[in-house]
Amino acid sequence: MEPVNIGLLGLGTVGGGTVTVLTRNAAEIARRAGRGIRIAHAAARSYDADTIAGLGEIGRIGDDAFAVVDDPDVDIVVELIGGYSPARELVLQAIANGKHVVTANKALIALHGNEIFAAAQARGVTVAFEAAVAGGIPIIKALREGLAANHIDWIAGIINGTGNFILTEMRDKGRDFADVLAEAQALGYAEADPTFDVEGIDAAHKLTILGSLAFGIPLQFDKTFTEGISGIEAQDVAYAGELGYRIKHLGIARRAANGIELRVHPTLIPHRRLIANVDGVMNAVLVKGDAVGPTLYYGAGAGALPTASAVVADVVDVVRLLTTDPTNRVPHLAFQPTELADTPVLAMDDVETAYYLRLTALDRPGVMAGIAGILGEEGISIEAIQQKEPAPGETHVPLIMLTHRVRESGMNRALARIEALDAVQGETVRIRMETLAG
Amino acid sequence: MEPVNIGLLGLGTVGGGTVTVLTRNAAEIARRAGRGIRIAHAAARSYDADTIAGLGEIGRIGDDAFAVVDDPDVDIVVELIGGYSPARELVLQAIANGKHVVTANKALIALHGNEIFAAAQARGVTVAFEAAVAGGIPIIKALREGLAANHIDWIAGIINGTGNFILTEMRDKGRDFADVLAEAQALGYAEADPTFDVEGIDAAHKLTILGSLAFGIPLQFDKTFTEGISGIEAQDVAYAGELGYRIKHLGIARRAANGIELRVHPTLIPHRRLIANVDGVMNAVLVKGDAVGPTLYYGAGAGALPTASAVVADVVDVVRLLTTDPTNRVPHLAFQPTELADTPVLAMDDVETAYYLRLTALDRPGVMAGIAGILGEEGISIEAIQQKEPAPGETHVPLIMLTHRVRESGMNRALARIEALDAVQGETVRIRMETLAG
Repeated sequence: MEPVNIGLLGLGTVGGGTVTVLTRNAAEIARRAGRGIRIAHAAARSYDADTIAGLGEIGRIGDDAFAVVDDPDVDIVVELIGGYSPARELVLQAIANGKHVVTANKALIALHGNEIFAAAQARGVTVAFEAAVAGGIPIIKALREGLAANHIDWIAGIINGTGNFILTEMRDKGRDFADVLAEAQALGYAEADPTFDVEGIDAAHKLTILGSLAFGIPLQFDKTFTEGISGIEAQDVAYAGELGYRIKHLGIARRAANGIELRVHPTLIPHRRLIANVDGVMNAVLVKGDAVGPTLYYGAGAGALPTASAVVADVVDVVRLLTTDPTNRVPHLAFQPTELADTPVLAMDDVETAYYLRLTALDRPGVMAGIAGILGEEGISIEAIQQKEPAPGETHVPLIMLTHRVRESGMNRALARIEALDAVQGETVRIRMETLAG
Repeated sequence: MEPVNIGLLGLGTVGGGTVTVLTRNAAEIARRAGRGIRIAHAAARSYDADTIAGLGEIGRIGDDAFAVVDDPDVDIVVELIGGYSPARELVLQAIANGKHVVTANKALIALHGNEIFAAAQARGVTVAFEAAVAGGIPIIKALREGLAANHIDWIAGIINGTGNFILTEMRDKGRDFADVLAEAQALGYAEADPTFDVEGIDAAHKLTILGSLAFGIPLQFDKTFTEGISGIEAQDVAYAGELGYRIKHLGIARRAANGIELRVHPTLIPHRRLIANVDGVMNAVLVKGDAVGPTLYYGAGAGALPTASAVVADVVDVVRLLTTDPTNRVPHLAFQPTELADTPVLAMDDVETAYYLRLTALDRPGVMAGIAGILGEEGISIEAIQQKEPAPGETHVPLIMLTHRVRESGMNRALARIEALDAVQGETVRIRMETLAG
């Protein structure tokens, strides 16, 4: 089957990330989508041709975004320019041309979404915007589909990574707002003009969208209350901490008795809540539904590849719509049934993990050296070792060790030898250990 | 338009929850799905007719599940019996009859999913199973759709609430496994025969499903390594804690160089990871994709209403498929465009929140009483109050107060009066406060 043709508007951070993801994961994406995806035509006002060429294949590149939107070869327009205009005109023109649209543009959807969706509905095309809220976190899909059974009570989200980075640094290091902002700008986490991020406008765009999805009301950005974090002082962060709270910049959408609350403002929250522990540039959205209770969605809210993850997921949605049997639009096991792989499932002997070990050993010089010697011979390196005090009248002591990663078969051999030592009593307790690092 | 007719197999915990959710949220669900949903026919071997009648309307109730599956009025069969048989025969019969199927049955999918999905594909119907993994958390949708752009590196999940409750109690209270298990059984968190939960079989069923979705391999429950938590001792939980780790019962699916790892076992993880802080009966799944990075999905993994949330979401998916224009199968704003509401967005004056206040007040008797008096007159009750020491040579001190919930307009009035006091210096710092409690 012929690949689906994408028209890409914008080749900046997210545009470049989208080219990277579509190219790097092309085979795997096609196994899921049921069809290849090709970037047929891209437009950007300015771009570095060499950089873009290094990211992946693009059929045609120019500087005329309207030419992409009018290109009869293009099936899906992916709008990654941002801002209100000409993004609005481009999207409306794409719709008028009968093309599906995928966009990451939260400002556009928050302000012009009602108009755009009506146009799409009338023309029989769809406008997908998963990337507009919380970057790579599939929160729009969760709200529109995964939680469709619920009466949503409220949503509270950390939906601006720059603001969360600043508040996290203020808390961890007792630093002032202005000081951390300058660092965030140097690191590239904050724009030269940080107003949209620190004054909550970006978060308000996203909250406007979440509120409509949760409560079934039209998009009303102008009614969303917005207060930034630039007035937060280090002493208040510290006092809140003493009282058991953390200050987070939250977007809150809540169903009250007399209406809907849509508000973005700094908020004290109890430090034991999971969302209070979402730090740095990460985003998280906590949704409270009447049936499901609280659910939380966490991940990177910005950046080239995380945002591209959401953009390309939307593209896959549209491709599945254009391609497959509607009844099994999404394949049961995520990949098309003909595309399942015979990659072997490993036997546990072949799996590598780190280990926590607890041995009971005679409290005598040389015993620990003997144990460490056996581990070394089996190629197992020790990360930490702790010998506990013997209980009164006890000749043996617990010996706790953390090891680096090793194949299970090697650990089995080492422990058989260790347990055979006269100085070691009984069986070793072993529990596998994982860092779960990115 | 006529409602879609559901045939419900099983009226136990999840079956009852499904009746409750479909009844209680009927109007809201129809606004999302584009059509009403009616329980036309239900079957259960035994049920309390009065209890069921109290939950909601069911067209016909009997004890013959095959009669439901063969009922020509039924469009979608919802299988909530559990176990392998007769669930397998019922689902295959429903498929043969051309009916879509929704199931919460993890054991059935893990062991017989390959056969069931092939039959569904051949017959042109779909089998939805969001409720089979992690209860109300829409993790299957996230993996199949939301993360479709990613090469998945690994998944690590707390996917059995009973086990997580036991490990959490062991850590928090230094208690032994057997002791906590007995309590969990008394609380109804653990079955009389707890083998499936504490020995990891239930988690292995779910992990088998997650592994296939992530890596595009057929379901292979027999190759999933399973080790339970019944061997975990209180002292190891404590030693792990001293070293900065928590012990969680994880299901891990990982892509290694030479194959796929599928393993359920107790695991030490660094205590600063978000997933290490998922406590009690809650579930969470951490997914690492190459584009999106780490994402986490958290919520209730079991229980009547959370599981029903996932079951009914699957039903809504099928109803949207049966009903709406495929191009806009999922409405842009979650609710059908004709079903948006004009619920007002509240002005901030009308919003109620709790507050953190910091005033700078003269360090003199009676000042605090004056401030507290004004708050009281405006109906604002104080939850906590802290007076800081004056800085050397300073006549004024910071006064920190936490208030209970109050309407913003009331707080504005109170603060205007307080700031007018001679003893109070400058403007009050105020930051809103939310408990984010369920």
